[in-house]
Amino acid sequence: MSLLDSLTEALRVLPGVGPKSAQRMVYHLLQRNREGAARLSAALASALADIRHCGRCNNFTEAEICERCLNLARDASQLCVVEMPSDLAVMESTHAYRGLYYVLMGRISPLDGIGPRELKLDKLIARATDGTVQEVILATNFTNEGEATAHYVGEMLRTRGLKVSRIARGVPVGGELEHTDLGTVAQAFVERRGW
Amino acid sequence: MSLLDSLTEALRVLPGVGPKSAQRMVYHLLQRNREGAARLSAALASALADIRHCGRCNNFTEAEICERCLNLARDASQLCVVEMPSDLAVMESTHAYRGLYYVLMGRISPLDGIGPRELKLDKLIARATDGTVQEVILATNFTNEGEATAHYVGEMLRTRGLKVSRIARGVPVGGELEHTDLGTVAQAFVERRGW
Repeated sequence: MSLLDSLTEALRVLPGVGPKSAQRMVYHLLQRNREGAARLSAALASALADIRHCGRCNNFTEAEICERCLNLARDASQLCVVEMPSDLAVMESTHAYRGLYYVLMGRISPLDGIGPRELKLDKLIARATDGTVQEVILATNFTNEGEATAHYVGEMLRTRGLKVSRIARGVPVGGELEHTDLGTVAQAFVERRGW
Repeated sequence: MSLLDSLTEALRVLPGVGPKSAQRMVYHLLQRNREGAARLSAALASALADIRHCGRCNNFTEAEICERCLNLARDASQLCVVEMPSDLAVMESTHAYRGLYYVLMGRISPLDGIGPRELKLDKLIARATDGTVQEVILATNFTNEGEATAHYVGEMLRTRGLKVSRIARGVPVGGELEHTDLGTVAQAFVERRGW
């Protein structure tokens, strides 16, 4: 296989990139932006080498434990469970929450072959039952997958004696946190209910 | 800037990738396809190091002169000028043409700041006036930019005493070769007219 074909095929690992757009990308990179292509190659290599999961919140980080988890000013008695780092970012932007997080890095989604095992929920259990966490707030999306995840995780943690709550269904049904206005997300947090 | 942010930004060199989809790509690569990400990083680096422009047809190649230009079975008296490698591939698929090619790697497009100078037409002139080429066939797209390019290149080569033709307007006006059925492209080639 030629280097050109290898690169075209390699670009198809990116979600949403088909054969035509991969080819367009190749021409664009080689013809118009070789510097950008070099930067991308290096950024991928560095990220793969040095980005890992925080030992506590499971978010991406370059350290063993991320800065947010080490921040003593945050309320360690509250643990907010979100699907993705982008959801964590939305919660943070509301300034309604001062506790800590756990990032699932996904959601239960049988169609994509992602069950409880693939989400490695053991790590969440260990984190939530460390003795300092008093309340786990489930902030997964209100999609079918997000709800299923909340039900499963909630059940799992409640049987271990933890107080579990769910952010209020202020977020529109079928909607995703990332695309919701901050006020709605903040209210949903304040109105969380027992789960 | 964190490695995560660097990678997100680096992915935006890809055409059609905005901030949201760059972020989705980062999560996907780091969480679900690290092997693919490593392959992509390596493929980019190899392509940048070893892919260059053929000294004769200007197409991408790993050699000094590409295989097609070295193929003695092809008719060296005909030179077909196309915009992009994908257009060359379409011409080849029609099996209607047995001559050689010149790939402009673009088109005259004032809005994108691409004029005759940026297309490095000197290389085309040198190629077309090497003494063996008898006819130059313009097979740029029938978009405004493609037509402008054909007019400019045609004029330029005709004043140097070359016979210049244009593939027939069988390709729908405003259409692009890449998205046209092979029969239409083949007929357009057969019905090329003096230019």
